[in-house]
Amino acid sequence: YGKNTIKFLRLHREGKKHFIKEVEVCTHLRLTSPQEYLEGNNSLVIPTDTIKNIVLVLAKKNGIPSLEQFAIDICSHFMTTFCQVAYVKTYVQEVPWQRLHENGVPHIHSFICVPDGIRFCEAEQCRNGPLVVFAGIKDLKLMKTTQSGFEGFYKNEHTTLPERHDRILCGELFCKWSYGECKDFDFDCIWNKIRECILEAFSGPPDCGEYSPSYQKTVNCIQMLVLSKVSQVQVIEVVLNNTFYNVLDMKNLGLTNDKEVLIPVEAPYGSCACTLGRK
Amino acid sequence: YGKNTIKFLRLHREGKKHFIKEVEVCTHLRLTSPQEYLEGNNSLVIPTDTIKNIVLVLAKKNGIPSLEQFAIDICSHFMTTFCQVAYVKTYVQEVPWQRLHENGVPHIHSFICVPDGIRFCEAEQCRNGPLVVFAGIKDLKLMKTTQSGFEGFYKNEHTTLPERHDRILCGELFCKWSYGECKDFDFDCIWNKIRECILEAFSGPPDCGEYSPSYQKTVNCIQMLVLSKVSQVQVIEVVLNNTFYNVLDMKNLGLTNDKEVLIPVEAPYGSCACTLGRK
Amino acid sequence: YGKNTIKFLRLHREGKKHFIKEVEVCTHLRLTSPQEYLEGNNSLVIPTDTIKNIVLVLAKKNGIPSLEQFAIDICSHFMTTFCQVAYVKTYVQEVPWQRLHENGVPHIHSFICVPDGIRFCEAEQCRNGPLVVFAGIKDLKLMKTTQSGFEGFYKNEHTTLPERHDRILCGELFCKWSYGECKDFDFDCIWNKIRECILEAFSGPPDCGEYSPSYQKTVNCIQMLVLSKVSQVQVIEVVLNNTFYNVLDMKNLGLTNDKEVLIPVEAPYGSCACTLGRK
Amino acid sequence: YGKNTIKFLRLHREGKKHFIKEVEVCTHLRLTSPQEYLEGNNSLVIPTDTIKNIVLVLAKKNGIPSLEQFAIDICSHFMTTFCQVAYVKTYVQEVPWQRLHENGVPHIHSFICVPDGIRFCEAEQCRNGPLVVFAGIKDLKLMKTTQSGFEGFYKNEHTTLPERHDRILCGELFCKWSYGECKDFDFDCIWNKIRECILEAFSGPPDCGEYSPSYQKTVNCIQMLVLSKVSQVQVIEVVLNNTFYNVLDMKNLGLTNDKEVLIPVEAPYGSCACTLGRK
Repeated sequence: YGKNTIKFLRLHREGKKHFIKEVEVCTHLRLTSPQEYLEGNNSLVIPTDTIKNIVLVLAKKNGIPSLEQFAIDICSHFMTTFCQVAYVKTYVQEVPWQRLHENGVPHIHSFICVPDGIRFCEAEQCRNGPLVVFAGIKDLKLMKTTQSGFEGFYKNEHTTLPERHDRILCGELFCKWSYGECKDFDFDCIWNKIRECILEAFSGPPDCGEYSPSYQKTVNCIQMLVLSKVSQVQVIEVVLNNTFYNVLDMKNLGLTNDKEVLIPVEAPYGSCACTLGRK
Repeated sequence: YGKNTIKFLRLHREGKKHFIKEVEVCTHLRLTSPQEYLEGNNSLVIPTDTIKNIVLVLAKKNGIPSLEQFAIDICSHFMTTFCQVAYVKTYVQEVPWQRLHENGVPHIHSFICVPDGIRFCEAEQCRNGPLVVFAGIKDLKLMKTTQSGFEGFYKNEHTTLPERHDRILCGELFCKWSYGECKDFDFDCIWNKIRECILEAFSGPPDCGEYSPSYQKTVNCIQMLVLSKVSQVQVIEVVLNNTFYNVLDMKNLGLTNDKEVLIPVEAPYGSCACTLGRK
Repeated sequence: YGKNTIKFLRLHREGKKHFIKEVEVCTHLRLTSPQEYLEGNNSLVIPTDTIKNIVLVLAKKNGIPSLEQFAIDICSHFMTTFCQVAYVKTYVQEVPWQRLHENGVPHIHSFICVPDGIRFCEAEQCRNGPLVVFAGIKDLKLMKTTQSGFEGFYKNEHTTLPERHDRILCGELFCKWSYGECKDFDFDCIWNKIRECILEAFSGPPDCGEYSPSYQKTVNCIQMLVLSKVSQVQVIEVVLNNTFYNVLDMKNLGLTNDKEVLIPVEAPYGSCACTLGRK
Repeated sequence: YGKNTIKFLRLHREGKKHFIKEVEVCTHLRLTSPQEYLEGNNSLVIPTDTIKNIVLVLAKKNGIPSLEQFAIDICSHFMTTFCQVAYVKTYVQEVPWQRLHENGVPHIHSFICVPDGIRFCEAEQCRNGPLVVFAGIKDLKLMKTTQSGFEGFYKNEHTTLPERHDRILCGELFCKWSYGECKDFDFDCIWNKIRECILEAFSGPPDCGEYSPSYQKTVNCIQMLVLSKVSQVQVIEVVLNNTFYNVLDMKNLGLTNDKEVLIPVEAPYGSCACTLGRK
């Protein structure tokens, strides 16, 4: 049990310059005894209202140095403070505020919301077990308008899809990775580096791109690039929900459509997921 | 990988009387070889477009006798037709159309959408493993305005929640259960019986209700009643996301509010989940 | 300016039996002077926080005898209390809680949320003008699986739609009507009667239905029936957003699909709207 | 009546470099005769399916030079082609794809979705009337963490809001403006200029900001700046839906909260709207 979507803004001031982190936190606990379920005995139950208070107090006292550090702090607090807690998990998601710029000059206290991929992390711990930290990005929508195809697939009497060597590849990405032993990582720096890897592996070189033979292969390319460039990542999971763009047949309207007008097909949508770790 | 939200309506006619099932289907596969991820070799890949076609062909040929039977049919088809499939999972969710009634008379071909709890099911199978069937209800919102409290919980310096012996209990329920060996079950009948158990365990007798000492205990009551009354259920998972109703303090407005005006607090919200099986 | 989505639950007790109304209220004002916009002079501005307080105080004092009466009370309060208010509008929407029944017996304090059409109303008044009251229903989803066609329409070189005399008619209805002079209306009774008219006009007699030659004609039938049966309605607006169900062509899958498998097309969707009043 | 959310991607290639516009179009018509409503006579009705085809054919033939020009083209087509059309309105909204950059180098065919304010436009025309063009931005979320207050407002017994001279100002902006006679406007350039005006008026100079005494005054500042800097704008409407950030009282948790931890209050929310034109 636990508390979901604890939303708050943590404002930090350095002179006249303001820094913000607005987050949503979900913290869940499992207790050592199930007596509150079986007997209605609440004596060990930490109310979800108290969970919320603790999250807010930690934010006030420690600030949010990074999402990951904040999630670690919360898990540690519950493990060390409450002996009845057998397991704790904390998820933190960031509202994507970015500092406003006017003619290139950063504004000291104004921000704009730019949701081009949402950063999140998760920390979890069993009593007597290690603290495990995950981080990730979700709702990242990318498109490439060529250098993508799908050919040579398995066919039978239910196959109606034609082979294509030049199609649009468009999808929403979810990536989540785990860190090994977390000692003094610069989580912000690593997260930004992984985001760049994702964009690079998806799109290829800026002047020519790189051919993708399937969504699956693109997922794998993203994983391979992250694992090769970011040593701190142990395991990486990628889910790619794709939107198919159908080249509209305009023959009955007297027109030839050379992939100029395409209709997005939002449902049904394909999805592929893969989890890859180091040997 | 797979295809999500394959939406369609299956219309069945008996004379002038029409019967409908509108569903959303998600079907996911895992292949025996990961070569499409690693090498971009698509030769074993069943396109998600083909998955969609198969789902629609099965709907056309077999109809949808029940959501569960339809999910079973889909899984069986993939397992028996494609030797490269190592695992298949199918989720089916129903659009809650109900037949319209005029002055108590059922209409032969008109329907109204009544989303008071969404029915779904899931079937999954590993090659050489058993077919496992789950069913469930989600988005079921219930409220009781008394016979609920929360007292005797653990307290420390972060506790600000007062003890209450008369509060509103309101939440959105998710219940999912697994069946044992499925032989000739009347899935529709069982599902309706379980829905009744949930409502009964949540609310208690109509003339007096039954006191709930916590969300956790209510979750447990639901599970116990279902397990005791429905022998086909092996394991039942219940998640209760609660909405807290705050009794508005109107003292500074010169009024005494005897739990007459309450403000729903949608975020953050508490959540409790429990999975219970038979011995 | 004003306050939107003021959400609260009004609980009323008669002995052990509980009655609830959960609503969302939006109240907007226009002041006689725009000085707060032009000069930043707030001296006449009633804060939106105060607007919220007033709505809650009125709910506490008067209860919610009907949505419409509550909206009227709010408008009257602002008009009579604040001479700087030039115009006030209040919208009230109900959360569709229904009393739970167990084996036909109504429960004294348990409720289930059944969103099969949301009831709302609106009251507005200009200083020195009449109080105008609207009521309505929205998000009402209906379907009929036959007795609908669309033929004889205008054709040119951009027409690809075939004529059809037997199609599915499915849509989401929005209906809003105005009352004339409101004196002691039983708003609940009228609302229920209008809802029945809408269902009847949409679906026709239960044993055979009634043919609809177009969405437009169905909209008009609804309006005509309401105006003929409910004398208190002065003007009625109906918007019907339709979902097209495409009969899937299964020829390339070797099957004949006699309108048994249909695919809902959610975007783009057609829409037709009409406002009709009495002479 | 009409067709809503006609979604498509228009792909334009210049050598190996690709340019995209993905849009949602809604086109509505009113016919000269209401016979389809009253008599079910469809002979003048242009099916919404044909409306969709026309929008797609125009996109194919003309491309989308700008959203506004595309909306104008659609309106003109309906007015000149169909004498039974009395009124036409077209709304066009853009999916916010941006070209990907790798180390500052623009990618020739890869894009990322960045929804930091959605661009839209609207064109409408009555037969024998002028073509009127609107443009706008919506879903633009901005925050400033100081230089905002609300003081000197009207008080009575229902006032509980304290005066504040340093609060957070956060809201979602909707701006829509009309153009006068549209002759060879560079709509893209004007739109970008107006977006900059909005950001500047909201936030003030980057090194110090500018004090806002109310949401209303901020709305007015935005309008005044746009009208003064962009001569093509005739009338500008601004709606600001604000999110209140409540400074959490942590006294009962033993802490002093100097506006460091703030809780966003999403419901109810205040809203202010103003429409301003030139003399």
